[in-house]
Amino acid sequence: MTPKEARRRFASARLAHLATSDAHNRPHVVPVVFAVEADTVYSAVDHKPKRTTQLRRLANIAENPAVALLVDYYDDDDWDRLWWARAEGTGRLVVPGSEEHRLALSRLKSRYVAYQDQPPTGSVVAVDVGRWSGWSASANPAGNEL
Amino acid sequence: MTPKEARRRFASARLAHLATSDAHNRPHVVPVVFAVEADTVYSAVDHKPKRTTQLRRLANIAENPAVALLVDYYDDDDWDRLWWARAEGTGRLVVPGSEEHRLALSRLKSRYVAYQDQPPTGSVVAVDVGRWSGWSASANPAGNEL
Repeated sequence: MTPKEARRRFASARLAHLATSDAHNRPHVVPVVFAVEADTVYSAVDHKPKRTTQLRRLANIAENPAVALLVDYYDDDDWDRLWWARAEGTGRLVVPGSEEHRLALSRLKSRYVAYQDQPPTGSVVAVDVGRWSGWSASANPAGNEL
Repeated sequence: MTPKEARRRFASARLAHLATSDAHNRPHVVPVVFAVEADTVYSAVDHKPKRTTQLRRLANIAENPAVALLVDYYDDDDWDRLWWARAEGTGRLVVPGSEEHRLALSRLKSRYVAYQDQPPTGSVVAVDVGRWSGWSASANPAGNEL
């Protein structure tokens, strides 16, 4: 799958998985809703601001900004339809009040109805993507990358 | 969510996400089908054996056995139904020919019809889970952990 196609599929998905790793090299993974703007992936942290520093994804990114995000399609009945798209990059925190924070929230609210009713108020995680990649079973019939 | 309930929900899911991290602290995440036996999570590598050493998840586990696995439920229309369950533990490789490899394949084939038609022939990743944890939106209405 070309980087362009991987980015396209990634950007149109509803849910991604964000992998981080702390200073002691312990990996962590959480589901995130997100929005892609150019080569940056935004996801919100829905906690009250005072609690956000306790979230492991944020502590991990502060210790080690290398992150990976994955979007994938699974179908129990037809493994020939499986695919995934991955974004590897550098994570950083976008704090409320900045122009970028307003942009990110605007994109997230336009994608998710639940955010329109109850907008997130805390920081946003921005991932600046250095590499888009992907795989699909139909394009690689010899092997199942799962 | 209690560890017991997290393990129960995890074990009954169809797809998990496996996060690993290499020696340089770069996280990685892949979707995996799996089977839980006691406190070990098994997932197969569907490549030909000679290619398995090139897979990043295997290279990462060899460099750094700390792994995290996540199972989650997402519903665009009702975020009050979201939940996730996490397994944190130590990864290792189970090679073909061993009793444990036969057990793992047997469990995987009984869970996934696609594996009955085309059983995996390569190594199996075993994760010995040290901690089960979980979260559900309905039990935590004040905050959305996404």
